[in-house]
Amino acid sequence: MGEKHTYMPTEKDLSYTFGGRMPLAHLRSGDVLSTYTEDCFGGAVTTVDDLPSKVCTFPYLNPVTGPFFVEDTEPGDTLAVHFLSIVPARTVGVSSTFPHFGALTSTSHTATLQPPLEERVWLYDIDVEAGVVRYRARNSDYTVDLPLDPMHGTVGVAPAGFEARSSITCDTYGGNMDTPELRAGTTLYLGVNVHGAMLGLGDGHARQGEGEASGVAVEVAMRTTIAVEVIKGAPTPWPRIETDDTIMSVGCARPLEDAFRISHHDLVGWTAELTGLDTLDAYQLVAQAGTAPVGNVCDPNYTMLAALPKRVLRGAATYGGVHERLRAIADVAPGTGAP
Amino acid sequence: MGEKHTYMPTEKDLSYTFGGRMPLAHLRSGDVLSTYTEDCFGGAVTTVDDLPSKVCTFPYLNPVTGPFFVEDTEPGDTLAVHFLSIVPARTVGVSSTFPHFGALTSTSHTATLQPPLEERVWLYDIDVEAGVVRYRARNSDYTVDLPLDPMHGTVGVAPAGFEARSSITCDTYGGNMDTPELRAGTTLYLGVNVHGAMLGLGDGHARQGEGEASGVAVEVAMRTTIAVEVIKGAPTPWPRIETDDTIMSVGCARPLEDAFRISHHDLVGWTAELTGLDTLDAYQLVAQAGTAPVGNVCDPNYTMLAALPKRVLRGAATYGGVHERLRAIADVAPGTGAP
Amino acid sequence: MGEKHTYMPTEKDLSYTFGGRMPLAHLRSGDVLSTYTEDCFGGAVTTVDDLPSKVCTFPYLNPVTGPFFVEDTEPGDTLAVHFLSIVPARTVGVSSTFPHFGALTSTSHTATLQPPLEERVWLYDIDVEAGVVRYRARNSDYTVDLPLDPMHGTVGVAPAGFEARSSITCDTYGGNMDTPELRAGTTLYLGVNVHGAMLGLGDGHARQGEGEASGVAVEVAMRTTIAVEVIKGAPTPWPRIETDDTIMSVGCARPLEDAFRISHHDLVGWTAELTGLDTLDAYQLVAQAGTAPVGNVCDPNYTMLAALPKRVLRGAATYGGVHERLRAIADVAPGTGAP
Amino acid sequence: MGEKHTYMPTEKDLSYTFGGRMPLAHLRSGDVLSTYTEDCFGGAVTTVDDLPSKVCTFPYLNPVTGPFFVEDTEPGDTLAVHFLSIVPARTVGVSSTFPHFGALTSTSHTATLQPPLEERVWLYDIDVEAGVVRYRARNSDYTVDLPLDPMHGTVGVAPAGFEARSSITCDTYGGNMDTPELRAGTTLYLGVNVHGAMLGLGDGHARQGEGEASGVAVEVAMRTTIAVEVIKGAPTPWPRIETDDTIMSVGCARPLEDAFRISHHDLVGWTAELTGLDTLDAYQLVAQAGTAPVGNVCDPNYTMLAALPKRVLRGAATYGGVHERLRAIADVAPGTGAP
Repeated sequence: MGEKHTYMPTEKDLSYTFGGRMPLAHLRSGDVLSTYTEDCFGGAVTTVDDLPSKVCTFPYLNPVTGPFFVEDTEPGDTLAVHFLSIVPARTVGVSSTFPHFGALTSTSHTATLQPPLEERVWLYDIDVEAGVVRYRARNSDYTVDLPLDPMHGTVGVAPAGFEARSSITCDTYGGNMDTPELRAGTTLYLGVNVHGAMLGLGDGHARQGEGEASGVAVEVAMRTTIAVEVIKGAPTPWPRIETDDTIMSVGCARPLEDAFRISHHDLVGWTAELTGLDTLDAYQLVAQAGTAPVGNVCDPNYTMLAALPKRVLRGAATYGGVHERLRAIADVAPGTGAP
Repeated sequence: MGEKHTYMPTEKDLSYTFGGRMPLAHLRSGDVLSTYTEDCFGGAVTTVDDLPSKVCTFPYLNPVTGPFFVEDTEPGDTLAVHFLSIVPARTVGVSSTFPHFGALTSTSHTATLQPPLEERVWLYDIDVEAGVVRYRARNSDYTVDLPLDPMHGTVGVAPAGFEARSSITCDTYGGNMDTPELRAGTTLYLGVNVHGAMLGLGDGHARQGEGEASGVAVEVAMRTTIAVEVIKGAPTPWPRIETDDTIMSVGCARPLEDAFRISHHDLVGWTAELTGLDTLDAYQLVAQAGTAPVGNVCDPNYTMLAALPKRVLRGAATYGGVHERLRAIADVAPGTGAP
Repeated sequence: MGEKHTYMPTEKDLSYTFGGRMPLAHLRSGDVLSTYTEDCFGGAVTTVDDLPSKVCTFPYLNPVTGPFFVEDTEPGDTLAVHFLSIVPARTVGVSSTFPHFGALTSTSHTATLQPPLEERVWLYDIDVEAGVVRYRARNSDYTVDLPLDPMHGTVGVAPAGFEARSSITCDTYGGNMDTPELRAGTTLYLGVNVHGAMLGLGDGHARQGEGEASGVAVEVAMRTTIAVEVIKGAPTPWPRIETDDTIMSVGCARPLEDAFRISHHDLVGWTAELTGLDTLDAYQLVAQAGTAPVGNVCDPNYTMLAALPKRVLRGAATYGGVHERLRAIADVAPGTGAP
Repeated sequence: MGEKHTYMPTEKDLSYTFGGRMPLAHLRSGDVLSTYTEDCFGGAVTTVDDLPSKVCTFPYLNPVTGPFFVEDTEPGDTLAVHFLSIVPARTVGVSSTFPHFGALTSTSHTATLQPPLEERVWLYDIDVEAGVVRYRARNSDYTVDLPLDPMHGTVGVAPAGFEARSSITCDTYGGNMDTPELRAGTTLYLGVNVHGAMLGLGDGHARQGEGEASGVAVEVAMRTTIAVEVIKGAPTPWPRIETDDTIMSVGCARPLEDAFRISHHDLVGWTAELTGLDTLDAYQLVAQAGTAPVGNVCDPNYTMLAALPKRVLRGAATYGGVHERLRAIADVAPGTGAP
């Protein structure tokens, strides 16, 4: 384990793009970073009367803490980002509908002549100790407790090709993937496109359903600790996620079947590489043993994952065993707040 | 429990459409039926040299056992089909690529000028006792055991509007949904479109990955026992599935996001009805507590499901408790072969 | 020219599917048929107060006159249908919005939680002599004359694989393609799937915009004269259209890019066959010289066409010159009412 | 007419993004600019052996001349760009296939396991005087002359939200729309997102088919003269195009039906505004009188247009008559090389 950093961002340290910004701080391979992320509304929604379309101003939505410059990263390398802990920084999470945004409404792109759905805000009580998020209906006294399952919707590096992309969208460089799979204990692999990688993260969710159907999860500021490692000379074309028992490839695209194709195409290639199977044999194995967790079906690019149990890889090591190495930090560094 | 029927189909009892056929036999609400289904290749693929495009002839693909006329069903009713047991009838399952069919190839509709992928057959050893399906690579000696998880890819009733639809596709009437969620212990709800419902089933899979990415699962003939119940005056617009702990709505469409939208739209409405929540409150609950299991991303219509834990419904009963009632048959009728 | 038939359908001669029906009459290759088609509402909308969702009953929508059995046609043949004349049979055409149907509204498949758009009917004065269709706004006194351009939205044969498909949709067998290119003077080529072909036609439009954005064109009953010819041993995988100066391939699918791909894929292959160019050279020629007329973006399957000026084919004859032969009937048989 | 500028870019004046760059020069409302644009390959493809994937290096593809700072433009204004003349600067145009790019191949996003199509280059003789582009097959002696129809594939301003976007894609700010409608004599309206607008243009095509099916048009450097005018306080949500007889709205999105929806949604709103019709009456008029020209079906975002003849607007003036005013410059300033 490298150096341990703590970076508490001020408002001017928040970024609304991946790419196009100067770094906040520098990290080295092996370092651990504890930081804070604001919620997607910039903390502006605190009561049910704070309608997001009124209290938020485009483009100041979905702020990202970063970018962080990671030393000795170049295009063609991979940055491994391991989530040691993700802990809600508030006891109330917020969700909402938002005009012409979400899966079950027409939108700016799936444009119809219908008026938007009613804009409505929901507040959720978050009990970190009990591991519970409490849903409360707005138009009745219906309540139900859901499992707390903290995650980051938005994690990425600077894109290639001199681009700067809004933190609302996602693509090969990561970004607003909005998959519930990005929880503590997982390692995210991102292909590096620019010197320094320029890592940023934000958009904490106390939990979200698969697809984020209403367009907004249970949004909350987070205290998060990550460890980073640089894998030299190993390109990663699309984001990948590893847990103790699963590998996953991430695809971001529209239509949704292209997100499925991208993620499965990447997983088939990765599986072939890890097992020595030829492409068709790997395709067959993934087709029978794989799952397809849905990320979001509401953002400018949708997200789907292709996942395979590591068990069927018969012991093959991904990226030289970096996940196991970073995972071990949680044990040796209890001060990181890791679960 | 009603009467117990056994129907072993001959070749001429196989159907290649939903709709447009005379019934094989009659059932009544509460009856139990034990029957047999051929695999999607009509049993013609038995060695790795039996390339499906050579040994099978369109349209004699994906045979369905049925239709079964269910007494006293009318348009506007719902047919509940509970799967008491689904047991592979052979010890070898088959899978394959198929020219221009599957998620990771161009197809007749996603048409490109590229030649098809190589057509290749895989054989799987099925061990029902051990609960294992053995994958064996074709171009190496790689093998791995996967969990046996038998299911039916194709279950449906006759469509509305005088249609007869190929057993390869799916729609509001069910059909080739190809979701791994249709296993023993579940109840499938299908809206009735014609007098007698005209139920058919087939396309057994020893297991399949989510998305059925290669276009073909681990195909095998099945010995299957179902119980049916008629729910009068309750329309079901799209197929629904219930397990002991989950309710699910099924959407069949292209592009894939429309399958997502259909299934979530139905689940939100169903949830509102079961809980008394208004539409937006139900939308919010589903968005945070729901999951989105993928069925197929290879057939003429893709399938996605929207799922909700029954726990969050706080005890609301679906369709008057029919799932629990049918589930209980497994206990009182061990002779049905239910698990 | 063969025999001349006249068939005026009664209400019971209307069909709501392609496939699954007994023929009304028999035709031979070379015969001319004069017939009548009802409008898509079955003639039930005659005032602005006749809301289609009230006065029409599913599935009695989009009636088709037919099927006609064409002697000596077998699967693998092509049926050429030449439109000698298409003349509105009424002086008033009707259009409307329809709940959750159309391109600029959510629909049963692009399902959202929004209520439908207002259902509204428009009446158009049709002046066949002047060649004019008069638009009249409902909520102001705005009127404007548009060119009369009569066409059939729905023309098809029985599908393959024992299917019967609703007259609302389209596919390889034709059906509700809803392209304005299907006007008098054109020849439609349809691949034959069953003995007798089983031709049907309906859904006359006094005119329609590309995309049929509101879901409904200027609908009107038609008096139509066609000539048919059978091309033995020439399969046609997707519908094709020929005019005096253009060849076109038709694709029917969702998402819309698949309709584009299908139509372009077919046109590239057809061009290669007609010119002797290899596939990539034909692809290049179509890519620079082709156009992509939009049919409908509202029906269960969308329609796009890929078109190429016959001039770039340097004199190659399609289907043995059948279009020119059928076109000539208009000159020798003025009694057909051809333009 | 304002000042007349000439700007001949050097290699370092070429831009590969919209946004994120300092301006090359300043223009004022009413000014005329004559400039030069390189072809999409940066001029690197000059023989059939210059395979683009070998001679070009990502991200140095599709260079844009610009950006030009337009004085006194602010977010919320519209920039009118009138094309006085677009003249090929070379006598040979180039086209090609490109690995996994184009409508009739799988791509990085519509990812399949198939190898790419053969990469092949075509050279076209361009005869400006004769108005002809000569296609020559590569694998036979087939040649055919096509009409010269020069246009710019890529014209745009800086995006909103601090973004910088690759010149390969298009969106609300314009960019690589690749529509053949952007020829001399037309006016393009772009909503301004940043102070100075930051206009850039490139990607000249001697001609292209609708859809740009092979992914590459007849690419050629251009000598182009434009006139710009600033329309204060008039926002334009998506690009619009005006000719002497037609207004058009542009939509850029995937899937293709969303590009259709966006463009039609915008055209319906624009029509309502110009005519005083209410939304549904405008929807009906566009649905019957409109056309839907296809731009590209190959780039990261597809492009479709919705078009309406100005005749049906009964004399309504768009943007205060700016098109007619700019169009007149061609007459008073023959030195501009306008047609």
